[in-house]
Amino acid sequence: MTADSIWEDISKIRKDGPLVHNITNYVVMNTTANALLAIGASPVMAHALEEVEEMAGLASALVLNIGTLSGPWIEAMLSAGNAANRKGIPVIFDPVGAGATTLRTDTAHKILQTVGPAIIRGNGSEIYALARAEGVTKGVDSTMGAEAALSAARELSAGLECTVSVSGDSDVIIRGDKTIKVRNGHPMMARVTGLGCTASALTGAFSAVNPDPLNAAAHAMAVLGIAGQIAAEDAEGPGTLQLNLLDVLYRLTRSQIAEHLRCEEDA
Amino acid sequence: MTADSIWEDISKIRKDGPLVHNITNYVVMNTTANALLAIGASPVMAHALEEVEEMAGLASALVLNIGTLSGPWIEAMLSAGNAANRKGIPVIFDPVGAGATTLRTDTAHKILQTVGPAIIRGNGSEIYALARAEGVTKGVDSTMGAEAALSAARELSAGLECTVSVSGDSDVIIRGDKTIKVRNGHPMMARVTGLGCTASALTGAFSAVNPDPLNAAAHAMAVLGIAGQIAAEDAEGPGTLQLNLLDVLYRLTRSQIAEHLRCEEDA
Amino acid sequence: MTADSIWEDISKIRKDGPLVHNITNYVVMNTTANALLAIGASPVMAHALEEVEEMAGLASALVLNIGTLSGPWIEAMLSAGNAANRKGIPVIFDPVGAGATTLRTDTAHKILQTVGPAIIRGNGSEIYALARAEGVTKGVDSTMGAEAALSAARELSAGLECTVSVSGDSDVIIRGDKTIKVRNGHPMMARVTGLGCTASALTGAFSAVNPDPLNAAAHAMAVLGIAGQIAAEDAEGPGTLQLNLLDVLYRLTRSQIAEHLRCEEDA
Repeated sequence: MTADSIWEDISKIRKDGPLVHNITNYVVMNTTANALLAIGASPVMAHALEEVEEMAGLASALVLNIGTLSGPWIEAMLSAGNAANRKGIPVIFDPVGAGATTLRTDTAHKILQTVGPAIIRGNGSEIYALARAEGVTKGVDSTMGAEAALSAARELSAGLECTVSVSGDSDVIIRGDKTIKVRNGHPMMARVTGLGCTASALTGAFSAVNPDPLNAAAHAMAVLGIAGQIAAEDAEGPGTLQLNLLDVLYRLTRSQIAEHLRCEEDA
Repeated sequence: MTADSIWEDISKIRKDGPLVHNITNYVVMNTTANALLAIGASPVMAHALEEVEEMAGLASALVLNIGTLSGPWIEAMLSAGNAANRKGIPVIFDPVGAGATTLRTDTAHKILQTVGPAIIRGNGSEIYALARAEGVTKGVDSTMGAEAALSAARELSAGLECTVSVSGDSDVIIRGDKTIKVRNGHPMMARVTGLGCTASALTGAFSAVNPDPLNAAAHAMAVLGIAGQIAAEDAEGPGTLQLNLLDVLYRLTRSQIAEHLRCEEDA
Repeated sequence: MTADSIWEDISKIRKDGPLVHNITNYVVMNTTANALLAIGASPVMAHALEEVEEMAGLASALVLNIGTLSGPWIEAMLSAGNAANRKGIPVIFDPVGAGATTLRTDTAHKILQTVGPAIIRGNGSEIYALARAEGVTKGVDSTMGAEAALSAARELSAGLECTVSVSGDSDVIIRGDKTIKVRNGHPMMARVTGLGCTASALTGAFSAVNPDPLNAAAHAMAVLGIAGQIAAEDAEGPGTLQLNLLDVLYRLTRSQIAEHLRCEEDA
């Protein structure tokens, strides 16, 4: 991952305006639609079982997010995920709150088993909960730390043959034995709701134009982190940060990326 | 339509604070409620079949928007629409995504046939899809351009005896053989989610105080376009534009309207 | 209530980041989550019957808000409320639109009878509608004014043995024969959607750290009112006000509170 490889994707997104189909939570629908528009993609939100298959058929990527779950939405996510698989477009899965309630952990398990997302994007404790649910880790919750989450992410990536993108103080993106670490972002971002969900939505946009899921996922995390840093520079608080973030995504330049990008790659 | 006729409506909205009942999509509920409050109206969102009839009975206009549809919401829209018809308040219909999926096209058809909205407000491809669904146009999708959309809008207006408001590079509002063209707005507005839905919500507010649907629809498009232009003047991107737009709607003056209004009328 | 007692609560919220479980309306989910994050709390939104009991079990306070109601959400509110009661965490109830439709008034009645919230927070006409539904007042709607609402709030507090927080030109918080009046806030706040709901969400955060419901409710109203005043100082309209409000909540200092607090207490 370099400023040039990120810039190439952004240029494609701005040129093609890929349609990203989101089945996501109520809290962040507006926020993530605006972030997708600001980067140059075309968001669509549709969740009715009667139309998700058809809508996924029009899209270039599908984002599934379980942040405010209920029965009919679960069915729709599975149906849309299967349609996306058949069409061969990438599925990005955000397991919001996996581990917190049985419904979320069980639904995440069902999506992983039925849909098989190209990219899983979550925070450490969510990824850890998934790894436990899939039986690929034997750890217990009480030992959970950044290291345990990374080890769970590696096992999850190997077990499900997918890319796992873990957000945290540093973001770590893993596929098989390849790892990219992104050291961008700003602490104030944790005080704006839905920036994790925004990371997943942007991962959808980058996946729509970049066939390599590891790089697509890493590009999305780097762009959000860099935009967050620039947005925080003159932010008096999380209100301004959220506003600035959209403006920065809209105007982001190759040289801003080159100046701010902090990442390491292991193969 | 003149700056004075627009100003008269705004003054009434600010004075009366008409209640606008919205059954709309999850993505834009917050945005459209804030736009209605900023212009001086009183928004209410209610979608349960058990209460929409009663709520429509309290309102001065009803806005139906199919942007995030599902079965129970369709039933509620039909019930609220019928209640609005019985009470004699205007129904504004926004066919978000008609033509994209069968569910949306079929639902739009059902609403047009059952409710008979006073005003349909959508973009060119949505209006074109409605005209095809109603059998009032014989064109095929591949020929769809701005001209085909306008011709579809004319046929739809004649066939359903309603006002059709088509947004685009220019906004065109049609009723029978009367046409108003509005040349306001700013390209950056397309990078903020829900401004089409905001146009429909504001059309509800203007319809609540102006019994002429052609003028009410045109006033709403002009006000949103003008406010968007002023909001874009010092916007660094779509985040600032969205924020400024609410401030501008709240403070909009007669002289700002007179200075910016660009429209043509054919009778 | 003093600047010091408010400051003590804010310091605890910022230190502990209490989890506030919200079952609230679609319009304000993003807004209230951001307000909770800005003050230092941890919001979670979850509404599926299958998980609300478990989620309430993880939380330090539960906020129920009936702003966009439907059948399954009512069931979930009752189940979560009962779980909160069993766990002994405070339930805050916002009866949005009670009195406007039968569904809302009846649902409010069911929640009051089944759950027994620690704090009811609404505007005058909602509180009045509740008092009538509970049979604790004999007034008729036509006489409803600020005085009738306060009298209804007193009767409701006595009848249900709970705290009642009534927002208006002045906010009045009542428990038994104790009354706190808060004279903060700014008229432009009425032009931003969801600030009443934000008051309820913040009441949840203060209740999570302060076992005295009268003071917790009063602290929340004072903090929102003060933050709104500061936010309005350089706001050009409701867009800027909403943004500033989040920044001000995030940076609020003890001396800002001391400078702006206007309240009276009767015991």
